[in-house]
Amino acid sequence: MLTLDKIYHASYVLKDVIRPTHLVKAQSITDECDIYLKPENLQITGSFKVRGSGYKISQLSDEEKKRGVIACSAGNHAQGVALAATKYGIKSLICLPDGAPISKVEATKGYGADVCMVPGVYDDAYNEALRLRDEKNYTFIHPFDDENVIAGQGTIGIEILNEMPDVDAVVAAIGGGGLLSGVACAIKSLNPNIKVYGVQAEGAPSMYESIKQGKIVTLDSVSTVADGIQVKEPGEHTFEYIKKYVDDIVTVSDDEICSAILKLIETQKMIAEGAGAAPLAAVMFNKLPVKGKKVVCIVSGGNIDVTILSRVIKRGLLMTGRQQTVCIELQDKPGQLLAVSKIIADLGANVISIHHERASEGSDVTGCYLRIVLETKNYEHVREITKALTDAGFKLV
Amino acid sequence: MLTLDKIYHASYVLKDVIRPTHLVKAQSITDECDIYLKPENLQITGSFKVRGSGYKISQLSDEEKKRGVIACSAGNHAQGVALAATKYGIKSLICLPDGAPISKVEATKGYGADVCMVPGVYDDAYNEALRLRDEKNYTFIHPFDDENVIAGQGTIGIEILNEMPDVDAVVAAIGGGGLLSGVACAIKSLNPNIKVYGVQAEGAPSMYESIKQGKIVTLDSVSTVADGIQVKEPGEHTFEYIKKYVDDIVTVSDDEICSAILKLIETQKMIAEGAGAAPLAAVMFNKLPVKGKKVVCIVSGGNIDVTILSRVIKRGLLMTGRQQTVCIELQDKPGQLLAVSKIIADLGANVISIHHERASEGSDVTGCYLRIVLETKNYEHVREITKALTDAGFKLV
Repeated sequence: MLTLDKIYHASYVLKDVIRPTHLVKAQSITDECDIYLKPENLQITGSFKVRGSGYKISQLSDEEKKRGVIACSAGNHAQGVALAATKYGIKSLICLPDGAPISKVEATKGYGADVCMVPGVYDDAYNEALRLRDEKNYTFIHPFDDENVIAGQGTIGIEILNEMPDVDAVVAAIGGGGLLSGVACAIKSLNPNIKVYGVQAEGAPSMYESIKQGKIVTLDSVSTVADGIQVKEPGEHTFEYIKKYVDDIVTVSDDEICSAILKLIETQKMIAEGAGAAPLAAVMFNKLPVKGKKVVCIVSGGNIDVTILSRVIKRGLLMTGRQQTVCIELQDKPGQLLAVSKIIADLGANVISIHHERASEGSDVTGCYLRIVLETKNYEHVREITKALTDAGFKLV
Repeated sequence: MLTLDKIYHASYVLKDVIRPTHLVKAQSITDECDIYLKPENLQITGSFKVRGSGYKISQLSDEEKKRGVIACSAGNHAQGVALAATKYGIKSLICLPDGAPISKVEATKGYGADVCMVPGVYDDAYNEALRLRDEKNYTFIHPFDDENVIAGQGTIGIEILNEMPDVDAVVAAIGGGGLLSGVACAIKSLNPNIKVYGVQAEGAPSMYESIKQGKIVTLDSVSTVADGIQVKEPGEHTFEYIKKYVDDIVTVSDDEICSAILKLIETQKMIAEGAGAAPLAAVMFNKLPVKGKKVVCIVSGGNIDVTILSRVIKRGLLMTGRQQTVCIELQDKPGQLLAVSKIIADLGANVISIHHERASEGSDVTGCYLRIVLETKNYEHVREITKALTDAGFKLV
């Protein structure tokens, strides 16, 4: 049974393991409410997960410690277990699916774990971890459905109330539900008037559906940019705690999550992974009744692959009119490219790429297409450019 | 005359204006030395500049305050002055060159300043600011060459020593030199054994050259990704302070700065602008004698335009083998694209774009070129793919 006592004990034990993270007022995001961020992306290992694994490992018996620990993870849990095990001087073996990003594999090794790459996906790595546990007698560290792991994550709730006793609402993302279970238990035990909300990705709403249907639901497939909360089935314990303590669960789309990631980059100079930006996305896109309130959004982690980050930024640039593709049907005669180039240069847009192509189906046989990717200032600027091109007699397609 | 007294006074006054920023141990960057970051990118307004402008404005006479303040800036100083003026309830007017990024203009307005967009570059905006000062009797706030501004920036030095009295070296970037003057004065006054280093961009080495030549040097042109330190001429005061207090100045290239920005994103989940990443770049690329030492790098700001950030990331992906362009000379017959696609798919690379083009100069008349941009895992993966293509008889060009 999870109790406030246990969470306070975890707070005490974790002082040696974690970095302090302080609430940050997130200005310039919205005027609708006062947003504060709990920046666990700045936590050591880049996510809150080290709290749960750290407390769990600290509470193992000497005999369990001697056997070493094993875990399965494609990301944050791996690094949390690796760091905590090394801290307590015990051996760790992490099973990862062989498609895991090289950066996470390297980071896990860097924190002192042995790594076992398993061909296949997460489920294959999970099964291999259980097989190795049985064969080699390792102690298995579950990523979320474990009372001590949940107590460790709950320390975030205590820290929020210590720093801001008059908070109105706290918002956290849900994957397996470990983070929100712990945080909600801590907060509701201390002050039941504070609202606690959960956020899931539209493409992986396993807890959302489970709570709605009143029973644990297993999704056939899940897909979201927020890979940290891409979980097919809630835990048994976490399902019960969330049912008991959480006021409401909402979902956000991948586009909403990407917008929130960009907002955090531009206004807070912080990198969040998809799961870490989901609570802010829920507030930004008015999914929660927090108008005029003091809200803490937990930014649970920042371990986003740079390749993905690059795509998120690109999408954000398109969505805010700072990059634009213009496709023009030209007469195939000399001087046309020059005329277009002049209009674009005069209006201060920067050419990123040009693709020029002769007559194909659908175009005039003497015609050709010019596709230009531009760096622009905003939508207004894009409109100015397209207007100038149209005014000059060019046909945009 | 700048004194420690004045810097302590600034610390006291600024408590109401700034956010506390705490040192962060930067793990996973190098084993050569212990790196700590002073994250002023997380400071309110996204840079340290608010310290100098905040203290300067707090010390104006009532009469000067009543007249309102004016400043010229393309970036961080603008936001610092705007916020501080609003905080003290006085009017501010900021002159910006009309090419300034829209995000910075909006942020400046958001902090309560009136903004005057001046056609031309920074120098034009500067002249317009001086003209308006004379015409309208505003109080001018210099971005760096002012004793109170320097004292405000110096508070960073005091905070570093408060948190880490046993630091061996502190590294800061130099544009006009206000930050480093203040920090070096604070640190050397408290403990002359602590080393203080300055870093400039290779493309804008005005203080570096001035110190080397023993007199203030004005550069004809400056160009660097670190726009925050792209300054043609040091200040008169800052030149003297840096000559007196700073142990050494080194320069870093734009590529080194980009690598440091990426490193901060990947390992610390922080966005730094070019100037903010320059000190870390100097340490990462062994420009400073800090092996085995405890070093604080001041991350002075995080206000980087997302368009630039996107390019920095792209360059980083190329430099670390995570994006690769492969150009193949194909025989112009059916089935060739299929064969290439199969090899790439089998090796788990992700196709970003394909460009296919018939015979041009230099290629066989029956030949054609295929240019494929791939998402790859690392250099090893790139080598695997090129080897597989070559083994299958394809000619890479």
